[in-house]
Amino acid sequence: MQRFALIGAGFIGSLHARNLFRHPKVSLDVVADIDLAKAQALAAEYGANAIAIEDVFTTDIDAVLIASSTPTHADFVEQAARAGKAIYCEKPIDLDTRRAEQAVAAVREAGVPLMIGFNRRFDASHASLKKVVVRGELGKIELVQMTCRSQETPPMAYIEASGGQMRDQTIHFFDLLCWLTEDLPVEVHVMGDALSDPRIGEAGDVDTSIATLRMASGALVQIDCTRRTGYGYDERVELFGAEGMAESRRQPHRHLSIYKGSEQISDGLHADWLKRIEPTFYEALDTFVRGLEGEQVDYPNADAALRAQRIADAATKSLQTCMPVTLTWD
Amino acid sequence: MQRFALIGAGFIGSLHARNLFRHPKVSLDVVADIDLAKAQALAAEYGANAIAIEDVFTTDIDAVLIASSTPTHADFVEQAARAGKAIYCEKPIDLDTRRAEQAVAAVREAGVPLMIGFNRRFDASHASLKKVVVRGELGKIELVQMTCRSQETPPMAYIEASGGQMRDQTIHFFDLLCWLTEDLPVEVHVMGDALSDPRIGEAGDVDTSIATLRMASGALVQIDCTRRTGYGYDERVELFGAEGMAESRRQPHRHLSIYKGSEQISDGLHADWLKRIEPTFYEALDTFVRGLEGEQVDYPNADAALRAQRIADAATKSLQTCMPVTLTWD
Amino acid sequence: MQRFALIGAGFIGSLHARNLFRHPKVSLDVVADIDLAKAQALAAEYGANAIAIEDVFTTDIDAVLIASSTPTHADFVEQAARAGKAIYCEKPIDLDTRRAEQAVAAVREAGVPLMIGFNRRFDASHASLKKVVVRGELGKIELVQMTCRSQETPPMAYIEASGGQMRDQTIHFFDLLCWLTEDLPVEVHVMGDALSDPRIGEAGDVDTSIATLRMASGALVQIDCTRRTGYGYDERVELFGAEGMAESRRQPHRHLSIYKGSEQISDGLHADWLKRIEPTFYEALDTFVRGLEGEQVDYPNADAALRAQRIADAATKSLQTCMPVTLTWD
Amino acid sequence: MQRFALIGAGFIGSLHARNLFRHPKVSLDVVADIDLAKAQALAAEYGANAIAIEDVFTTDIDAVLIASSTPTHADFVEQAARAGKAIYCEKPIDLDTRRAEQAVAAVREAGVPLMIGFNRRFDASHASLKKVVVRGELGKIELVQMTCRSQETPPMAYIEASGGQMRDQTIHFFDLLCWLTEDLPVEVHVMGDALSDPRIGEAGDVDTSIATLRMASGALVQIDCTRRTGYGYDERVELFGAEGMAESRRQPHRHLSIYKGSEQISDGLHADWLKRIEPTFYEALDTFVRGLEGEQVDYPNADAALRAQRIADAATKSLQTCMPVTLTWD
Repeated sequence: MQRFALIGAGFIGSLHARNLFRHPKVSLDVVADIDLAKAQALAAEYGANAIAIEDVFTTDIDAVLIASSTPTHADFVEQAARAGKAIYCEKPIDLDTRRAEQAVAAVREAGVPLMIGFNRRFDASHASLKKVVVRGELGKIELVQMTCRSQETPPMAYIEASGGQMRDQTIHFFDLLCWLTEDLPVEVHVMGDALSDPRIGEAGDVDTSIATLRMASGALVQIDCTRRTGYGYDERVELFGAEGMAESRRQPHRHLSIYKGSEQISDGLHADWLKRIEPTFYEALDTFVRGLEGEQVDYPNADAALRAQRIADAATKSLQTCMPVTLTWD
Repeated sequence: MQRFALIGAGFIGSLHARNLFRHPKVSLDVVADIDLAKAQALAAEYGANAIAIEDVFTTDIDAVLIASSTPTHADFVEQAARAGKAIYCEKPIDLDTRRAEQAVAAVREAGVPLMIGFNRRFDASHASLKKVVVRGELGKIELVQMTCRSQETPPMAYIEASGGQMRDQTIHFFDLLCWLTEDLPVEVHVMGDALSDPRIGEAGDVDTSIATLRMASGALVQIDCTRRTGYGYDERVELFGAEGMAESRRQPHRHLSIYKGSEQISDGLHADWLKRIEPTFYEALDTFVRGLEGEQVDYPNADAALRAQRIADAATKSLQTCMPVTLTWD
Repeated sequence: MQRFALIGAGFIGSLHARNLFRHPKVSLDVVADIDLAKAQALAAEYGANAIAIEDVFTTDIDAVLIASSTPTHADFVEQAARAGKAIYCEKPIDLDTRRAEQAVAAVREAGVPLMIGFNRRFDASHASLKKVVVRGELGKIELVQMTCRSQETPPMAYIEASGGQMRDQTIHFFDLLCWLTEDLPVEVHVMGDALSDPRIGEAGDVDTSIATLRMASGALVQIDCTRRTGYGYDERVELFGAEGMAESRRQPHRHLSIYKGSEQISDGLHADWLKRIEPTFYEALDTFVRGLEGEQVDYPNADAALRAQRIADAATKSLQTCMPVTLTWD
Repeated sequence: MQRFALIGAGFIGSLHARNLFRHPKVSLDVVADIDLAKAQALAAEYGANAIAIEDVFTTDIDAVLIASSTPTHADFVEQAARAGKAIYCEKPIDLDTRRAEQAVAAVREAGVPLMIGFNRRFDASHASLKKVVVRGELGKIELVQMTCRSQETPPMAYIEASGGQMRDQTIHFFDLLCWLTEDLPVEVHVMGDALSDPRIGEAGDVDTSIATLRMASGALVQIDCTRRTGYGYDERVELFGAEGMAESRRQPHRHLSIYKGSEQISDGLHADWLKRIEPTFYEALDTFVRGLEGEQVDYPNADAALRAQRIADAATKSLQTCMPVTLTWD
């Protein structure tokens, strides 16, 4: 049984609380939040104790799940590391890659496990895509196509605090890309624009972007990201290799079709990203817990976090300069 | 908050326990089973009390969920009814329709709510099919096609206690049919055979059957049922009306496709019926609970239970006589 | 090069003329019709000679394609047989099975090739279904499901001359069934009704029917046929075997999908049966011609014609008596 | 009736001959080729006259279909223009855009119709995509995704004479893009590599490329092109607008699915590009002919030819310099 503290009792924190509670190998002992009342309400729902955040790291827990606001992640990661706690941290560690590197250094020094919430890896279809690659069914990967289109543009306050589309949204696919292909990008070029809302452009960000990457292996990659579709959450991954192509398809939210006249009208996509990927949160947690219990597991660790962030930084630079940007890895 | 007693701590009982536990408006107070140790183990998992079945009806609970073995259902329904408890009973009330009618009489006398576990109605795609019918999008229903094919033939002991394929498996679709079409069959004809295992035939049952029904409205119906597919659990419903056709489609268990050579290899169907319809158990329970909380809800009640059973009896008779059987309703 | 005479210059005759003309191994020498002007017009289009029907059998042609009205088929088959011509005859040979048997006797005596226009066998997807069966991929066939739903109810004059839905429409699927399964039905039961147009019922026919058959092997079969869908031509075949299931799916007429709101709106089915199966006419002709040129080919012959007709007769009897009908084969 | 001369009796010429022959409003009078024997063989097949190319322009025909080798196109276009013949020319007019411009100038001076063989516009699904855009169903177009993946790398001799992947393969999609969106690109960036065959790289070309374009309207575009898939011909177009998304989907070559174990194995894509787009050749010709007969039609004209070529030139430059290239239009 792994005793957890949850930091952050907001939207994502509540989602994690539910999964921590229902996981048979987890005991959700402690909930903390800057807003103590919020922590108390959530703790009460699951029979946990609400405490102040500063007290979390001295309690007798095994692991911390950090789901507080982004600017607090790096500090909590460092404190948890120093306290010898295992850490599951929502992405990103910090919008500033250097600050994220400092926090990772603390984690490495402490030798504690760190998992980052790149949970798309845990989607059943994406995960089975990875197995197809690993089994060599596609041969050498030559072309990758990823689509990530969110249902609805988030509020401007969210956009402004997000670090930009590359660091906030596309970053999930930078991680997925490296994980699926076991490869690294050496060049990135991004075109983008604010097409759904001019205020996004005024804030120096984009809502529609197409990123192209060249991988060290020579494989070429396309990623398209939009902030609002009007037709639900649209996520799709295609891997084209020398010996075949595999696709983790668009997903309908139900399986009804109506035939009338010359049309077939079917259920469309999931209404929003959460409906589409909700099961991945439990899968991600379960993998982390199995790791804590001694099992050999594969999850997005500190290296993955920093890798994705460096790509997002380069992509952001390309977006701003309208020029390709080279990435070097040692 | 509705306080529940669960009777039956076996496979289906455990499934119900999990849902009773996670439902926010339900308190799972009591678990009972003929095998007290089994009841204790399950009760412990969810912080409930294990008690003897005979004590269930005198405890201070609001509702009983009966998930014990079929021959015990009718007795427990009657006892629960007399004790004034609301009842959620796994299907069937009794394999013998007269005995079921007696139990229903007790329920009616007591005036307690009774819901039967015809949970396919709560499948998201089937339920949305019903809405399509109710909105009149298909016009008058003229043809219905239902497919119910289980992954693997159950053990002979199960078959022998099941009342036969019509009463055990097809009955779900008899209920679904009447509910979707708001209509009643007036004639039924069934052809069947034991094709997967001769012992099923020796036991007087079939594993593969095609039922055809004529509804009071004139609509014609086909239902095919098999006990093992070798390719997962295959369920499909098609309603053809004067103004269109709607289909609750086969459901893949994931959304991966691989293109190689001249083939597209995709994820097949769910591995078994439970994987396919698991969410319906929670939906069914939730509907029952919302009814207890005073909401106007639609669920399979005593009438539905007896109606489906009478159809299953007629279907069984047709199967045995190889002749069409007429059904009359008053 | 095979020199053909075409008898019948109506709708189906014109369709055959086009294919006869474009086939590289065929020379369309002669077109005949009771209405000589019609024959002349069609002949002119393709550089053929229009002659009187009675002169067809004395011309120096190799083969006759009979696409005249049904009541004339048997006579022309007999005359062609006696003249030693190869015969491609639209179905049926005659609505009266005894008359058809007489004509077949003449064909057998003459030893000329006879092909019947059961052209669904030549549909690319159905044909590949047959290959799957022959390769044994499905194991022993246990269940068959066939759907044949026409776009629009034909005129009453057509219905009245058709011999009834079983002999006119379902018969194609009786042939397809025997061909795909290499099996024969031993029992048939049909329920039907006139749901789209009461005049069809008054004429003693049905427009909506469900046929169930038991094959000699034990396999069970469902066939549903309707005369009008309102959503295009809907044809589908499913074979369920001990080791897998194969489906020749519904076919969209184009491949466009639109995602808006919560829906995916796609191109529906082909607008009518001809759009769906038009390529089968050329494939059927080509197979017949390859046979004439000495190749070993498989096509619906006299046996297939009589077999399908006997099943249609039994099905019609079941429809009229509301009882199952037994079929015996020597 | 339009009297045609066909120049070029090779693979594409033969394809055009077949369509010219079967078109009811076309008379294929003349076939010419540098190889007179080839012209004679093809002419004989369709009852046409074989003549020397230089004699084509003095014959009494209405239109010339130029399907000879690329380097000869511009000369024949000019000669046909001067002779006042309508021109259907396979793409490109010339690999050198200046030379193409000269030929177009001659066409404009002569005032004859010129259609270029960008036949993908005539694909039924793509064409219906255009209608969706024109009806405004998608709102303002914001994102376009196009996939063009050929089955098998062509011979090196073909590659070397092709002008490179952008001018040979991607150019079809540059035309389709401008036509579908009624928009022009202002910036293009291409990444590419020779991944299937190093000799392609040695020849200065690529076989795998991803082009990204920014349109004047602000819309962003991704096009991926590969020379060999190993899984058939893969073409797909997706238009994402402010009010919805439409997709001209991948197309299976047949409609068979087999369910076995945990998989669904379906027919894959068309075996090669010709099988996929063959019907577009007839549609394209028919549109051209309807234009000649006085109907108001929309087809790829001289402007479209030069526009696509300028984009292909810019794309080629980007590929060579690894930098984005700006396009200006007056």
